[in-house]
Amino acid sequence: MGRAMFEPVYQKMFPFWTEITEADRDFICEHSLALTYPKGTNIHNANECAGVILLRKGCLRVYILSEEGKEITLYRLHDGDLCMLSASCVLQSVTFDVHVDAEENSECYVLSSYAFAAVSERNPNIKIFALETTVSRFSDVMWVMQQILFMSMDRRLAIFLCDEVARTGSDVVPLTHEQIAKYMGSAREVVSRMLKYFATEGIVELSRKGVRITDKRRLKELAL
Amino acid sequence: MGRAMFEPVYQKMFPFWTEITEADRDFICEHSLALTYPKGTNIHNANECAGVILLRKGCLRVYILSEEGKEITLYRLHDGDLCMLSASCVLQSVTFDVHVDAEENSECYVLSSYAFAAVSERNPNIKIFALETTVSRFSDVMWVMQQILFMSMDRRLAIFLCDEVARTGSDVVPLTHEQIAKYMGSAREVVSRMLKYFATEGIVELSRKGVRITDKRRLKELAL
Repeated sequence: MGRAMFEPVYQKMFPFWTEITEADRDFICEHSLALTYPKGTNIHNANECAGVILLRKGCLRVYILSEEGKEITLYRLHDGDLCMLSASCVLQSVTFDVHVDAEENSECYVLSSYAFAAVSERNPNIKIFALETTVSRFSDVMWVMQQILFMSMDRRLAIFLCDEVARTGSDVVPLTHEQIAKYMGSAREVVSRMLKYFATEGIVELSRKGVRITDKRRLKELAL
Repeated sequence: MGRAMFEPVYQKMFPFWTEITEADRDFICEHSLALTYPKGTNIHNANECAGVILLRKGCLRVYILSEEGKEITLYRLHDGDLCMLSASCVLQSVTFDVHVDAEENSECYVLSSYAFAAVSERNPNIKIFALETTVSRFSDVMWVMQQILFMSMDRRLAIFLCDEVARTGSDVVPLTHEQIAKYMGSAREVVSRMLKYFATEGIVELSRKGVRITDKRRLKELAL
């Protein structure tokens, strides 16, 4: 029964699916769960190793957290994405801790970390797939790092707003300045100041509902 | 002849060495070079894909560079370390560019990127080894990122100086403020200000020769 549920999805998502034994396909499905994480749930942290998460629908945010509670968003995962760092307890070469939160109600298939470790020990192709997925995230993180460390604030904010508009298809970004700052790994004051500057330039309108983009062309130019 | 030279080292460094065919061992040695990079050489950048570098003796610095020329050091490699990102042109999941400079005269064995790609295509264990090495560097980079983004400057500087003392065994760090700032991904003014503060506290002495640590115990406390 489990297999009938998981296999159609795993077949599409895992390039190694047809290369492993029938028994291993069973094993993976037997150790999988279909879980829905409500919006706001902390799914993974240093003490809790969630497993390999296949996000079917929703949004997960992966971030690091300082001792003082400061957050930096590394990346967000969307429909069809795979989260390997949530199985970091079995990835020996990963020595850092990330946190994963559900940012929307998120429907996931979750393969337990230990089942994943067992099956990837038997199948080099699974190990390669997992490591390649992790290295792709390394690339995402390097991009974030360059943004934070090298880029001017106006450009970073413009890129963030353009990405949100492209992702949601709406001209309104329904987030508070605090939330935007958190996503960008910046301070609220800095974001507020820059948004006010954008507003005086007629690029955005600020309201209680969030940020409305009023001049998309100029915003895109800033993001270049 | 090439094989007689490279094999003793590769045998020690590569866990997969005994698991690949005789022909592949020959192939790897035939596509290897023994190179000495003089101090200051840029070994790898976006346009030049050096290959997989095994550092026998010396020091390599891996860093990212902004369009405006700002540098952030990601990590340094020392005797016996392996540099995979210098073969990034053949690592598909790596989509960012790093630069690698020889910081001291560095004796290296270099396996060409394309030979590495060919042989790792035939041998899953080589691919796994390469990816695991890359993921370990991901962990290093996350550590740097947390340092830069989360940590207070006094602690970062103390950690940097402690690491240098531990690495060289000398109480004198023979670097300019400019160089220290570059290694730490900070600004010279910030480093100078903090060093002056350390000097007034009697933790260091500043001179033309560099920074002399005069109170190691307090420096270590700051680094905790």
